[in-house]
Amino acid sequence: MAEDVVPLHIRRVRSVMDLATITGLVSAFGLVAAAIYLGSSPSTFINVPSVLIVVGGTLAVTTTCFSLREMGRTFRVVMKTVFHSSRDPSDAAIQVLRIAEMARKQGVLALQNILGSIQAEPFLHKGVSMVVDGTPGEEVEAIMRRDMYATVQRHAKSTSVLRKMGEFSPAMGLIGTLIGLVQMLGNLNHPSTIGPAMAVALLTTFYGAVLANFVFLPLAAKLERNSTEEALVNSVYMMGAASIGRQENPRRLEMLLNSLLPPSQRVHYFD
Amino acid sequence: MAEDVVPLHIRRVRSVMDLATITGLVSAFGLVAAAIYLGSSPSTFINVPSVLIVVGGTLAVTTTCFSLREMGRTFRVVMKTVFHSSRDPSDAAIQVLRIAEMARKQGVLALQNILGSIQAEPFLHKGVSMVVDGTPGEEVEAIMRRDMYATVQRHAKSTSVLRKMGEFSPAMGLIGTLIGLVQMLGNLNHPSTIGPAMAVALLTTFYGAVLANFVFLPLAAKLERNSTEEALVNSVYMMGAASIGRQENPRRLEMLLNSLLPPSQRVHYFD
Amino acid sequence: MAEDVVPLHIRRVRSVMDLATITGLVSAFGLVAAAIYLGSSPSTFINVPSVLIVVGGTLAVTTTCFSLREMGRTFRVVMKTVFHSSRDPSDAAIQVLRIAEMARKQGVLALQNILGSIQAEPFLHKGVSMVVDGTPGEEVEAIMRRDMYATVQRHAKSTSVLRKMGEFSPAMGLIGTLIGLVQMLGNLNHPSTIGPAMAVALLTTFYGAVLANFVFLPLAAKLERNSTEEALVNSVYMMGAASIGRQENPRRLEMLLNSLLPPSQRVHYFD
Amino acid sequence: MAEDVVPLHIRRVRSVMDLATITGLVSAFGLVAAAIYLGSSPSTFINVPSVLIVVGGTLAVTTTCFSLREMGRTFRVVMKTVFHSSRDPSDAAIQVLRIAEMARKQGVLALQNILGSIQAEPFLHKGVSMVVDGTPGEEVEAIMRRDMYATVQRHAKSTSVLRKMGEFSPAMGLIGTLIGLVQMLGNLNHPSTIGPAMAVALLTTFYGAVLANFVFLPLAAKLERNSTEEALVNSVYMMGAASIGRQENPRRLEMLLNSLLPPSQRVHYFD
Amino acid sequence: MAEDVVPLHIRRVRSVMDLATITGLVSAFGLVAAAIYLGSSPSTFINVPSVLIVVGGTLAVTTTCFSLREMGRTFRVVMKTVFHSSRDPSDAAIQVLRIAEMARKQGVLALQNILGSIQAEPFLHKGVSMVVDGTPGEEVEAIMRRDMYATVQRHAKSTSVLRKMGEFSPAMGLIGTLIGLVQMLGNLNHPSTIGPAMAVALLTTFYGAVLANFVFLPLAAKLERNSTEEALVNSVYMMGAASIGRQENPRRLEMLLNSLLPPSQRVHYFD
Repeated sequence: MAEDVVPLHIRRVRSVMDLATITGLVSAFGLVAAAIYLGSSPSTFINVPSVLIVVGGTLAVTTTCFSLREMGRTFRVVMKTVFHSSRDPSDAAIQVLRIAEMARKQGVLALQNILGSIQAEPFLHKGVSMVVDGTPGEEVEAIMRRDMYATVQRHAKSTSVLRKMGEFSPAMGLIGTLIGLVQMLGNLNHPSTIGPAMAVALLTTFYGAVLANFVFLPLAAKLERNSTEEALVNSVYMMGAASIGRQENPRRLEMLLNSLLPPSQRVHYFD
Repeated sequence: MAEDVVPLHIRRVRSVMDLATITGLVSAFGLVAAAIYLGSSPSTFINVPSVLIVVGGTLAVTTTCFSLREMGRTFRVVMKTVFHSSRDPSDAAIQVLRIAEMARKQGVLALQNILGSIQAEPFLHKGVSMVVDGTPGEEVEAIMRRDMYATVQRHAKSTSVLRKMGEFSPAMGLIGTLIGLVQMLGNLNHPSTIGPAMAVALLTTFYGAVLANFVFLPLAAKLERNSTEEALVNSVYMMGAASIGRQENPRRLEMLLNSLLPPSQRVHYFD
Repeated sequence: MAEDVVPLHIRRVRSVMDLATITGLVSAFGLVAAAIYLGSSPSTFINVPSVLIVVGGTLAVTTTCFSLREMGRTFRVVMKTVFHSSRDPSDAAIQVLRIAEMARKQGVLALQNILGSIQAEPFLHKGVSMVVDGTPGEEVEAIMRRDMYATVQRHAKSTSVLRKMGEFSPAMGLIGTLIGLVQMLGNLNHPSTIGPAMAVALLTTFYGAVLANFVFLPLAAKLERNSTEEALVNSVYMMGAASIGRQENPRRLEMLLNSLLPPSQRVHYFD
Repeated sequence: MAEDVVPLHIRRVRSVMDLATITGLVSAFGLVAAAIYLGSSPSTFINVPSVLIVVGGTLAVTTTCFSLREMGRTFRVVMKTVFHSSRDPSDAAIQVLRIAEMARKQGVLALQNILGSIQAEPFLHKGVSMVVDGTPGEEVEAIMRRDMYATVQRHAKSTSVLRKMGEFSPAMGLIGTLIGLVQMLGNLNHPSTIGPAMAVALLTTFYGAVLANFVFLPLAAKLERNSTEEALVNSVYMMGAASIGRQENPRRLEMLLNSLLPPSQRVHYFD
Repeated sequence: MAEDVVPLHIRRVRSVMDLATITGLVSAFGLVAAAIYLGSSPSTFINVPSVLIVVGGTLAVTTTCFSLREMGRTFRVVMKTVFHSSRDPSDAAIQVLRIAEMARKQGVLALQNILGSIQAEPFLHKGVSMVVDGTPGEEVEAIMRRDMYATVQRHAKSTSVLRKMGEFSPAMGLIGTLIGLVQMLGNLNHPSTIGPAMAVALLTTFYGAVLANFVFLPLAAKLERNSTEEALVNSVYMMGAASIGRQENPRRLEMLLNSLLPPSQRVHYFD
């Protein structure tokens, strides 16, 4: 049976760049920038010390709450959230079923030929590689589940770092404004400077509100949502690789995967 | 028995256009409009850039939190919430019991004649059609339950989109006001412009408060309430269609439906 | 045995008009009225458009969240909360035990003579009537439990209507104040009008705070408390009527009732 | 055996007056008083109508939420919280073990001689009295548990009264300030009175913040803490009295008490 | 076997000084100090009475909520949190496995030689000492678990003290500002003093916001995090000492420890 290996055509899992995050961020900042540039003096809105107090203060206080490693990891996770490609769980399930069918028909070793075409999905690639190397199904499942769990934990930690930043940045804005107000009120001899001084004092409140509401809180919500979605796709890959490793019937795998997928996304590969 | 099919008169399920949503929205906006028009300069209250910042900013930030598809779906759901027709669960139960009685007396195929008269209730129509086509009761229940679950999930997602909008719109109002205040304070040379500039700055706060308290939060509360109500009516339809498909005694169906309905809405069709 | 029916003297259940609600409402409003009348210009505090915006707006927005029927029912429930008569659960238990003892000694039909004297307690009256009519104990319990559950649900809905009103009325106050401020700031040419205009603008905030803190939130808390208390008394009546219907020994009923009552209110009727 | 009763010396349970509550209250009010007296015009801070609105209004509104009896009981409980004597649970356990040992060696009736020396602990006194009177252990436990439960419930109710007061007093402060502001703004003809009028208006906000943060919220937290502590000591007394009533071996009682006490407070009376 | 005791080289458990807490605290305060010193009059920001009101008031009010002992303990715990050395749980597990292997090969008494080299880990030292003294495994586990539980409880109490301080310090800031405002408004005769007086009034709000957001809330979050981490390392030590005391196979201990560690930190000492 292993002689007549017909390289199966493996489509890539449909993966759509998640435009919502970037669209949202760009339009929100665009609207504010437009409102500022249409006003009289756009340069009033840029004040380096104010930026330092709000951004630096938020980072400093959040660092106190966590460890340096958790902070660094959060920034990498945020980058991945912004340029996140959302994968369709149904599509991932169909992909897995095709690989399982191929393993059933041509033997597990034939999967070696498709390892190259699934490199875009590292988690699936890792699972199939283990199966090809002869790792038993139970162990494949145990190792992949451990990886998945570690990823979910890491994302949950990053979500809570972002939430804390969203809590602390308005507080930093308030503290900056209080500093500005006290400085201004302590020197009222030049009444003409009251306006500009107060404008500068309000800037930190503005920065804090923008950071919390445009960046930290929405990214925390998005990261949580993506983490759930990714865990679902990864569960599909894990159950697929384990099932191939256990040399089960692909029809049974379809049943297993459907019990995992939400009703509207169930697949009917074998009819 | 199938010869003497007497077309049973099938009343439509009593369905009352839910006037509370529209009444509430119209009177709230009417009161505010009256307060503005009775004041001195109603035109002060219209400022396109302010509308753009609050409405656009809220949409942009909420989009960051979700996906484009979830945003689009929410707007369709909101439209349905505003023009929602509330159906009486007892009435739906009686309707289902009449159909079950007809199926019992004249055979399941006789239901073909009434399919036309229940088209106003698509979920019931779908269930009865499957029964007429000979789908077994268990499968009818499984398919309908899956549909129901998917609908409830979709509504829950839309509710949380509306809640997030209700959270972000006052924040956008604050950000807009801060922009206006900083611009005004940076140019205090013309004291006569302070008043109007501040009026414009406050407009975004006003828009944000109105959007959150008149639109987003009440609609989120209403959508949640309607979703629960609709799920109850759909459960009645599902249990009815499944029971007819299983050719059960309609008296047993009545008992099942009553265990589902709240005490004050139980029905006594067979006495 | 039924011949020598001695009409048992049935005391009325001690029921104290709950003065706390009225005392609280009257003193709170009295204090505010005094503070206003002792000030310089009490008439400043009455402004019909402001009342309309806050009261009307709160009603309108809450109507959007619920249905017209739920709104109407809440107003009836509020009236009952204000003039609520609190009944002592121990006293209700003793009352029930005396009726049970009478039914034991003189037969269930003898209870017909006391139906008149318990009309002040409609729920107990209903239960005893059913027992006299020969309804079996299980059915009496089922019907009364259904009634009780429906009442608790209705009160819970009304509580949440009041809570939402308590949330929305300060928001309406803020919106009214923002309207007033924008109107005032748009017309700064007459500096002498700033004060009075601002006074009027602040009135809606004042109305919103008073409505929420004097009326909606306290009444919601009180309604929740009364609903729990009433459910306890009604449980006592339900268990009593059911026990009489089942012709159980009143000593067993005492044990059942004591397991229901809080430790400090347990009764010792049979010693 | 009862002849040679050697009156056992019963130390009093170590009970330390809880100085934290009084220290905290006195220093907080002392600091504020110092800040006021060091300022220019301390008399500005006393304004009888403002005190009436905030204190009276808070009492009135909280009364609406509860019943008159619950209000009265809260004030007694607060007094006991302020002058609370904290008892050491380990010490109470040792005390109970000594009494149990004495009962074991000299018989239960010998406990009559020590009733006088434990009068400072009414709950223990009540339990031992019942045992001396021959009440069986099970009944002693049932009665004491009922008392304990009623006390915990009463404290929980009082805690929630204090919490509500802590919520309503800042709201009353705001309402008072709004009244003052509206009165001041309605009479701007004498500019020289603006300052003092506004000072008076702010006083209610000040009173509300002080009452909530110095009195109501800390006392609610303390009462909750004390109630947990007292329930632990009372459980020790209850288990001790019940064990003596059951004539159990005191070593078994030690084991039971240690399972109740937190690890750091376990006792080793019999080694 | 005990003759050829080869002193095993016991590495110290890798323990990294947790720089995040100090880095965060120093940079946050550094940024604020820089913003103040770059401004015009840094001395305006130091006002002893304001510091007393906010710091003293927060301490006083929090003392009311807890006992003097709990307050004192919190300050010791905070010191330990700031200079916390984070230990790697995997490393602790390997350390424990090496000791277990040594005990297996050279006998339990041989552990006496390494007691000195593990003094830096008091909890491990205590466990191994008990084992060397011949305490049975079950008792070692019971005693160590009790210690661990008491530590976790103590940290939880300290976390809640810090949280309450983070709640009360902004309230104290507000109260201080209100005192300042009332004093200033009561003496408006010297208009030139308004600015500086208001600057001083705002200082307490500033202090309250800085204390809560720079110190109390971040330290509470950090303490909670460290407590969880320390409990994990201590569980490793407890299970290790108990296993050695029970003279179990170290391979079984490895399995036990891995079930305790998060997936990414599992160890593979015996391969």
